Amino acid sequence: MCQLLAMNCNTPTDICFSFTGFQARGGLTDSHNDGWGIAFFEDRGVRQFLDTAPSAHSKVAELVRSYPIKSKNVVAHIRKATQGKVSLENTHPFMRELWGRYWIFAHNGTLVDFNPELDGSYLPVGNTDSEFVFCWIMQELRKQFGSVFPGTEKLFAALTELSKVAGDHGKFNFLLCNGSLLFAHCSTNLTYVLRKAPFPTVQLKDQDVTVDLSAQTTSEDRVAIIATSPLTHNEVWTDMKPGTLSLFEEGGISKTADTVVGVPRGLNY
Amino acid sequence: MCQLLAMNCNTPTDICFSFTGFQARGGLTDSHNDGWGIAFFEDRGVRQFLDTAPSAHSKVAELVRSYPIKSKNVVAHIRKATQGKVSLENTHPFMRELWGRYWIFAHNGTLVDFNPELDGSYLPVGNTDSEFVFCWIMQELRKQFGSVFPGTEKLFAALTELSKVAGDHGKFNFLLCNGSLLFAHCSTNLTYVLRKAPFPTVQLKDQDVTVDLSAQTTSEDRVAIIATSPLTHNEVWTDMKPGTLSLFEEGGISKTADTVVGVPRGLNY
Repeated sequence: MCQLLAMNCNTPTDICFSFTGFQARGGLTDSHNDGWGIAFFEDRGVRQFLDTAPSAHSKVAELVRSYPIKSKNVVAHIRKATQGKVSLENTHPFMRELWGRYWIFAHNGTLVDFNPELDGSYLPVGNTDSEFVFCWIMQELRKQFGSVFPGTEKLFAALTELSKVAGDHGKFNFLLCNGSLLFAHCSTNLTYVLRKAPFPTVQLKDQDVTVDLSAQTTSEDRVAIIATSPLTHNEVWTDMKPGTLSLFEEGGISKTADTVVGVPRGLNY
Repeated sequence: MCQLLAMNCNTPTDICFSFTGFQARGGLTDSHNDGWGIAFFEDRGVRQFLDTAPSAHSKVAELVRSYPIKSKNVVAHIRKATQGKVSLENTHPFMRELWGRYWIFAHNGTLVDFNPELDGSYLPVGNTDSEFVFCWIMQELRKQFGSVFPGTEKLFAALTELSKVAGDHGKFNFLLCNGSLLFAHCSTNLTYVLRKAPFPTVQLKDQDVTVDLSAQTTSEDRVAIIATSPLTHNEVWTDMKPGTLSLFEEGGISKTADTVVGVPRGLNY
């Protein structure tokens, strides 16, 4: 199974601590050896690092871990290849532009018999089901709303419907972010923690590392961390309900909607 | 003036040596302090590093310089901001997807009164004339050829015409690459060297570094390096003729065409 990680905050925050635990899952504490990637938004811009080497042994991951890039929105992924060879073009997260903003997408799961027609406005470069469904989502949003951002309400409603359609074809945990809005779809498993003052001292599950979060934060800071499974021992992680889409903004959840229309193919709830 | 650098080869090659000289131009031997970026193709995938810090003092540049990523196509840019603030979203090279391939674009120059309508299929995320003209090029290619790659001949002809139109509005030196084809448009200054056996020992202009290229290459290797100005002392660099578009493939020039229709605004030939 692939591993997903995202951070959504109200103030630029570095993800070094969480990434340290996450990085270990790519070949050290878990067997996700088929590459990894991370995308940091800085305002509207994106800094993206992709690597086909396992994250636990990647020089690029070492740079990311030691270089405190501060960002309000981060999406990361460690790959366990199920569809598509191990190559840079198949490495998540994927990026496209829509409405003059970059969109970053990462997926955990496999879709079965999902073959809607792509009209050419967004085409996959690699050959994963994940990049395919991302292109389809971008295409459908462009088709529905044209070339202008429709506002958060309408976008959330549209993504809820699209998640229902694609989610009916299998396991479809995904993260989608445009630098201010972070959408998280839980098909089978995603969990999150909302950090705010008073910030605790927390300990990683995957590495012997402890950090006093209060030393790096102010009382106004809000930080949401979303992951496939909890990264720390001594915090309250909340499991998302399978079959829900959530919107994270400024370090908190602003919307949640159900996306299940039945039992998806190949899944048992 | 911004600095452009590209490499096009017939076998994956590391660009560490050339990048070492190029990197120095961002704040050490020249005053391009407004960020830098580099994109490496690996097959169809792209590894892109962007930074708003001057390249001479950038930790990310240090990683790129010391980490021998092998690539057949590389495009790099050091920015001297003329339009648009210093920010990640205004940092070259820019990336978009067309026909299921990533396209990388970097520009040196300034376009005056260039305001064609964008239909929304590609929109700039930042506010530079460079990203704007790149979006326009992608849009016009999609409009002309639909969702299928038209072949190299037709693409080269179309890019020649588009270079004429945009090039009439000012200084328009650019590099455009899809991972196999590298287009280089010389509006005022671009120069290149074609390296092949017997490979010489070459010395950087911008740093006190000498490398025996024969130690890292085979007799079959072909490497084209394109830059705003020569990077080495003891090699033959050929200046491109102002007002020409050239196509580099497999380490050599396969096509050249004139793109000048008059004297562009603000330029004196």
